[in-house]
Amino acid sequence: MIEVIAFDADDTLWENEVLYHEAIKKLKDLLSTIQSPELIEQRLDETEIQNLHIFGYGIKSFTLSMIETAILLSGGEINGQTIQHILEIAKEMLTTEVKLFDHTEETLKVLSKEFDLLLITKGDQFEQQMKIDKSGLSEYFRHVEIVVEKSQESYLELLDKYKIDPTRFLMVGNSLRSDILPVVGIGARAVYIPYDLTWSHELVTMESDDEHKFDELEHIGQLPGYIISLDKL
Amino acid sequence: MIEVIAFDADDTLWENEVLYHEAIKKLKDLLSTIQSPELIEQRLDETEIQNLHIFGYGIKSFTLSMIETAILLSGGEINGQTIQHILEIAKEMLTTEVKLFDHTEETLKVLSKEFDLLLITKGDQFEQQMKIDKSGLSEYFRHVEIVVEKSQESYLELLDKYKIDPTRFLMVGNSLRSDILPVVGIGARAVYIPYDLTWSHELVTMESDDEHKFDELEHIGQLPGYIISLDKL
Repeated sequence: MIEVIAFDADDTLWENEVLYHEAIKKLKDLLSTIQSPELIEQRLDETEIQNLHIFGYGIKSFTLSMIETAILLSGGEINGQTIQHILEIAKEMLTTEVKLFDHTEETLKVLSKEFDLLLITKGDQFEQQMKIDKSGLSEYFRHVEIVVEKSQESYLELLDKYKIDPTRFLMVGNSLRSDILPVVGIGARAVYIPYDLTWSHELVTMESDDEHKFDELEHIGQLPGYIISLDKL
Repeated sequence: MIEVIAFDADDTLWENEVLYHEAIKKLKDLLSTIQSPELIEQRLDETEIQNLHIFGYGIKSFTLSMIETAILLSGGEINGQTIQHILEIAKEMLTTEVKLFDHTEETLKVLSKEFDLLLITKGDQFEQQMKIDKSGLSEYFRHVEIVVEKSQESYLELLDKYKIDPTRFLMVGNSLRSDILPVVGIGARAVYIPYDLTWSHELVTMESDDEHKFDELEHIGQLPGYIISLDKL
């Protein structure tokens, strides 16, 4: 019954949020003489949310918010060397290797022989494309889509563009907000693979009846078995 | 003979490069006690080119390079307030209105009735999408494509995706490097509308035989007349 399987990228196929956690840890060390770790994290979070509609997602946006937070917390007294350290943190994030999760490549390899695979990712297009290139996984995907927002509307547009029937479509991802709820909302199927570092902005409160509309797996390696079980329903 | 007309966005439909020029002017004022305007511009240019492969195109990338340049030129001594001013310059660039060129809207309106119009733009996806939304021009375009790079390969991919015959395709833009030469390179037609502030990175040296492969107009309002003249060939 399923013909097309779409995957989220960050924290579904490879580690991503951990890079942000490591960067925040470095920022706290860098500003440890100025403010407490808790206040640094709280102000950064507020600054990020405030800037999201102007800067969008991604490491460059995050970096501008780190810099703004450092200036704010220092009362404008922070010096150029410290800001340069923040720029170095950003460049390291942008140039680091992509760390695939266990089972990712073998699972995509197997599934790509039987299904059309799509990659549907949200975020800064340039940064996402860099990661896709570095991941070595491009060959398994029929199409790659980097979208600005993952909503019911944007999924409907994609399905329409590629002439995919929602009942033949399965989305796999780690974000209830972006990968799961909008997909079940348009009558397609979704598999939730939780990741314990998912960004707080991506967390949502589930309605009690949402829970029955999608399935949950522990890791991506369980996906082929799950799909076999669907066929037997 | 032409069925699909594609337009570049920045500095073809609306002003863009002028925002960068104004920002550079403000940066020079801000750093006027530290360095000469010439050196500031030169260092910024070098920093941008150096960072392009990590940061990509767009205002956020440009802002990170402005900050890095200010730190470099001050020997790390620049303070937080000055960096905050640079962040404010960036936010103003990102939130300013989109200024359409004369004739843009009327030309798109007329042409959209007879042809499929595409928007093909390069740059930061989030920033480009914001400008497209603010421009009020979306309704005239059948498809909008925000690509990472405009090369022969990326044009071929797009034509293939939308099943467009290159001989029925016309591209309109202000950049020889991105809008014109790759398009004539794949056997399609291109109309060059020069803009005097085109970013130096987009400038190329033309081969003498390139000149005969595309046409040049002074402004977008001349496009309908040009297309009529093609039909009479």
